[in-house]
Amino acid sequence: MTDDASTPTTPATPAPESITTIACVGIGTIGGGWAAYFLARGYRVQAWDPSPEAGNRVRRLIDAAWPALTQLGLSENADPENISVHTDLAEALDGAQFVQESAPEVLEMKQQLLADIDAHAADGVVIASSTSGYSMTEMAVQAANPERLVVGHPFNPPYLIPLVEVVGGEATDPAAVQWASQWYEHLGKSVITMDREVPGFIANRLQEALWREALHMVDNGEATVEQIDRSITDGPGLRWPLQGPMLTFHLAGGPGGMAHMLDHFGPSLKSPWTRLEAPELTDELRESVVAGCDEEAAGRSVPDLVAERDRAIIAVRQVIDQLRRDAA
Amino acid sequence: MTDDASTPTTPATPAPESITTIACVGIGTIGGGWAAYFLARGYRVQAWDPSPEAGNRVRRLIDAAWPALTQLGLSENADPENISVHTDLAEALDGAQFVQESAPEVLEMKQQLLADIDAHAADGVVIASSTSGYSMTEMAVQAANPERLVVGHPFNPPYLIPLVEVVGGEATDPAAVQWASQWYEHLGKSVITMDREVPGFIANRLQEALWREALHMVDNGEATVEQIDRSITDGPGLRWPLQGPMLTFHLAGGPGGMAHMLDHFGPSLKSPWTRLEAPELTDELRESVVAGCDEEAAGRSVPDLVAERDRAIIAVRQVIDQLRRDAA
Repeated sequence: MTDDASTPTTPATPAPESITTIACVGIGTIGGGWAAYFLARGYRVQAWDPSPEAGNRVRRLIDAAWPALTQLGLSENADPENISVHTDLAEALDGAQFVQESAPEVLEMKQQLLADIDAHAADGVVIASSTSGYSMTEMAVQAANPERLVVGHPFNPPYLIPLVEVVGGEATDPAAVQWASQWYEHLGKSVITMDREVPGFIANRLQEALWREALHMVDNGEATVEQIDRSITDGPGLRWPLQGPMLTFHLAGGPGGMAHMLDHFGPSLKSPWTRLEAPELTDELRESVVAGCDEEAAGRSVPDLVAERDRAIIAVRQVIDQLRRDAA
Repeated sequence: MTDDASTPTTPATPAPESITTIACVGIGTIGGGWAAYFLARGYRVQAWDPSPEAGNRVRRLIDAAWPALTQLGLSENADPENISVHTDLAEALDGAQFVQESAPEVLEMKQQLLADIDAHAADGVVIASSTSGYSMTEMAVQAANPERLVVGHPFNPPYLIPLVEVVGGEATDPAAVQWASQWYEHLGKSVITMDREVPGFIANRLQEALWREALHMVDNGEATVEQIDRSITDGPGLRWPLQGPMLTFHLAGGPGGMAHMLDHFGPSLKSPWTRLEAPELTDELRESVVAGCDEEAAGRSVPDLVAERDRAIIAVRQVIDQLRRDAA
């Protein structure tokens, strides 16, 4: 599109680096956690919440989070007091250049609230929802301008866990998805941009599979709650902060990596090691997984990755052991 | 049973603290990792492996692991050279007071090897298998004395990951299971003793559910390998070294903990957030999970656990960030 003055122009979405003021709509555990994070990054926060308790609650949450945020490093202008709490939505949205909605997971509430936010937010402002379960396609149905509505799904606590999953609905402008991804990256987040809606996004699907298998085991008396937790904290959980499940199995294949692992252990996908049926290990799936691991490894050999893993496990164990001693 | 001299007595299993010599049967990645761990704990290791390469390979593995083991703290008498490698099984088992079998995951090979070990090991010596997939009931069929055969399933690398899952087969003497659990605890391991055989034990079932869901997502083009790994490393993987999946959801419930979480988010078990169907959330299952979390929390309130979690996430993030900077 040219800069022709006769062309109707879309109102400009502010450049991420020009943003100073953010609206947090809903300030429970997740919304309040976002508010703490935005404050630590030096932004002004205007919060909306219908509860008369919300102001005190978010104050306590920010005070509790601030030492952690300080330890991780505050941005210039970071000020835990730079927040106002409103019961009037229009007031909270006045002047906001980005909106993070974190209302309870009730579809009708989200639909109404996103429509109200859309009605009050300045033109061009992108509106993100923290929803962990709904698609933007189903949440955006009442909004007049669904093209600027995106999912920006954080992990609890949003002020410490870097991951944010970004995805639009059917009516979302791809430019809004791209803008939101750039904005969260500018904020210092680890962003995963999905090109289509999948129920539960990515991390929650993985977590949910594990959680459901755990519930089955408790239900059948196969394991206790404590055994399930310890099987993760003292087992694979020590590897996962550095290397995810894919790279973990890349290393399990020895020097031959994921290719060897799939060729050798592929048959175990037929084993009844979980209630979840595995997909057929086609040549195409094998190639996707092997190529993806090679790409992630980025030239590092399996022994290189083993050495990195070992350093990480030692360091993580020392950190956790020390924290447990301190707590005892 | 009384100490009546006329009663046939079972040969005594050595007390864990009296053990000095261990046989490692099979010294690939897992068996060699066990050997490194036993050496670091001050034991004499007698290894058996049919491969002429095995001696050099295990030497390289021990040399690579030793700095890590040194950093975690060596026991008195720890000596990386205190190992002999044999191609004759009887030689490797001569004088061994405990046997750790880590042969390839081929059922017929395990059956034959466990029978051979049983034939050569001194009476009363407990024999553990590192198998990640077979039950002792199916592996023990050829052994003359199946009562002393147990599964002692480690996680890779066995010299750094504390978890060991212990379970017997149908013919295993419960005393051997109990002895193996005490022995691994004496060694400094985090032991989970299962009272019945479940395919894949506990941690692998949880890991396998996650892995299969990940394969489905790659297969359907819903996520890339890199996105799957990052969704864990930068997301829930940062919480799991301190708090497992159960305690994680205990905290997701706010001050009401797991009880509130199940009452509030129970319906999401019906959501298509993974291909794995959840069990019915009966009152009984709800009570088991809530009681298990209360027991694990051991008097710590949800805010206490949140504070512990936040300290752990910060420390783990700092450790991982530093390792990534060092590697770059």
